[in-house]
Amino acid sequence: MKTVSSTESIQYQPPTWEAILAAHARIAPRIHRTPVLTSASLNAIAGARLFFKCENLQKTGSFKIRGASNAILSLTEQEVARGMVTQSSGNHGAAVACAAAWRGVPAWIVMPRNAPAVKAAAIEGYGGKIVLCEPTVTARKATCDRVQAETGAHLVHPYDDDRIIAGQATAAKELLEEVGDLDAVFAPVSGGGLLSGTCLGAKGIRADVRVVGCEPERADDAYRSLTSGTLQSLESSDTIADGLRASLAPRTFAILRRHVESILLVSEEEIISAARLVWERMKIVIEPSSAVAIAPLLKPGVVASLNLPKRTDGGTPKLGVIFSGGNLDVSSLPWK
Amino acid sequence: MKTVSSTESIQYQPPTWEAILAAHARIAPRIHRTPVLTSASLNAIAGARLFFKCENLQKTGSFKIRGASNAILSLTEQEVARGMVTQSSGNHGAAVACAAAWRGVPAWIVMPRNAPAVKAAAIEGYGGKIVLCEPTVTARKATCDRVQAETGAHLVHPYDDDRIIAGQATAAKELLEEVGDLDAVFAPVSGGGLLSGTCLGAKGIRADVRVVGCEPERADDAYRSLTSGTLQSLESSDTIADGLRASLAPRTFAILRRHVESILLVSEEEIISAARLVWERMKIVIEPSSAVAIAPLLKPGVVASLNLPKRTDGGTPKLGVIFSGGNLDVSSLPWK
Repeated sequence: MKTVSSTESIQYQPPTWEAILAAHARIAPRIHRTPVLTSASLNAIAGARLFFKCENLQKTGSFKIRGASNAILSLTEQEVARGMVTQSSGNHGAAVACAAAWRGVPAWIVMPRNAPAVKAAAIEGYGGKIVLCEPTVTARKATCDRVQAETGAHLVHPYDDDRIIAGQATAAKELLEEVGDLDAVFAPVSGGGLLSGTCLGAKGIRADVRVVGCEPERADDAYRSLTSGTLQSLESSDTIADGLRASLAPRTFAILRRHVESILLVSEEEIISAARLVWERMKIVIEPSSAVAIAPLLKPGVVASLNLPKRTDGGTPKLGVIFSGGNLDVSSLPWK
Repeated sequence: MKTVSSTESIQYQPPTWEAILAAHARIAPRIHRTPVLTSASLNAIAGARLFFKCENLQKTGSFKIRGASNAILSLTEQEVARGMVTQSSGNHGAAVACAAAWRGVPAWIVMPRNAPAVKAAAIEGYGGKIVLCEPTVTARKATCDRVQAETGAHLVHPYDDDRIIAGQATAAKELLEEVGDLDAVFAPVSGGGLLSGTCLGAKGIRADVRVVGCEPERADDAYRSLTSGTLQSLESSDTIADGLRASLAPRTFAILRRHVESILLVSEEEIISAARLVWERMKIVIEPSSAVAIAPLLKPGVVASLNLPKRTDGGTPKLGVIFSGGNLDVSSLPWK
């Protein structure tokens, strides 16, 4: 795979619309077309009409199966023969293990020691082999490299990969296909696979839709990268949003620089209280990383501060929110 | 309203298909068309293809808004003028309070003292006025009669009412419209509004679909009524399925006698473990009453014991399951 460094990011060509259409056709028979839910009580709190794309209800419990299955289903028999390897805080690992099982090959998943046990159990449930490492970006990459060298497995990077980005783009594509006149779409950002895919998938349907990233204050590398204009790293993070502990990569940074309106930061308390509100009002299980995408919209004045153009229908803004996943230990809830 | 006694139940004419169509047209603009979800892992456990109609994702968090809004939206201005009154363990109360608010009139909700606090809070959130009573069928009826006499409010019975039954029928109607070749549909039974509506709504689309009721062992009046052939009462009940503590009424008994295949009983432990499995695998919040409808299907041999005809597609049985609601206190989970 061609390496993209941060300095040449301006020349990088992201996945085309045709690549996203091909990804969608490839994965649609295998995954759920997840529902778009609404909630009158959350609308009232936000002062907007919210449309929630529920990737927590996706196969493997997160959007990650979109990218992972697009990558793995597009490989030749020879390319998959020695199995798959990746690093993941959990959801991408489950997705790679699941898609590898579809191809009948093994998957090695490198996970930080502080990843939730329930995510490790899910990976093992799909037949994945877990390799634990220290919870730092450096250790995760080094361990992944070592496993790859030892096994000869094919690397499925969690986000710095066009096949992954094209797959993740299909979630926003489906959302805009269903609700075509959204003013903006909100998605959480970690390594940027979902958010960059959201840019491409949403804007491919409606060119002037705005895309907003949402990030924990305790893992704010995307915010710092986009405000400084240079790719910032995040050596480690202890946010409760365990799916958002990675840093942007050159490909995702390039796409976000071009397409993202802004990155909104939220505190740990805001994440937990948003998660609880969604469980209570919407009756769906979301993990804290999902709550990061709705948390900013529950704060007074945030929707107004977006300065969205007045709608021709005279109504409040129509905002899409992507709930990224629903994997967590339901016997140890964030608000206990 | 004409009174139907249990002895004349054989002469009772249930809501017609036209009444159900009219109910659906009346309520559809106000309620959610809830998604039908599937789960590969639950299919594997059950040995069947399961299609879950998610009324836990319905407005007010349960199917009850279907019947309540059908009843209340069909009333004249004069009939609604002095408000609404009902008795409810919670979900029907929230639905009546919500639909009364749509009409701009007050609602008095008689609730047993042991109903979950979160359900009382929801009723108050919709502007309903709560009247507490002892947790017995007798006390609930007496208190409701007293409030009705004092206020002149219009009674919206939770289930012994054709407008309610026709409204509840729309859930199964939508399910069968979406998955037309179901072999059987499973729904929980309490007073029988949902289950009798499920019979009418499902069989209106596919005449030979079987309808199975699911009931807690600790609140087994429907089981006893249908096996004995005479309406049995349930003076009180302490099942964790707090939505299933009522008894059949003449109207619902008449419909169930004619249309229900069988009633399957489940233990408290089976309810709790089914609820947890659904939260974990499907990432949705269901209350214990919903779990009653899936719990039998998770037991070995139960699907085979249904003796369903072989499918022409050669596959495993296609079974609908109606999740009735998702209202519970998410800080005090059933499995803690």
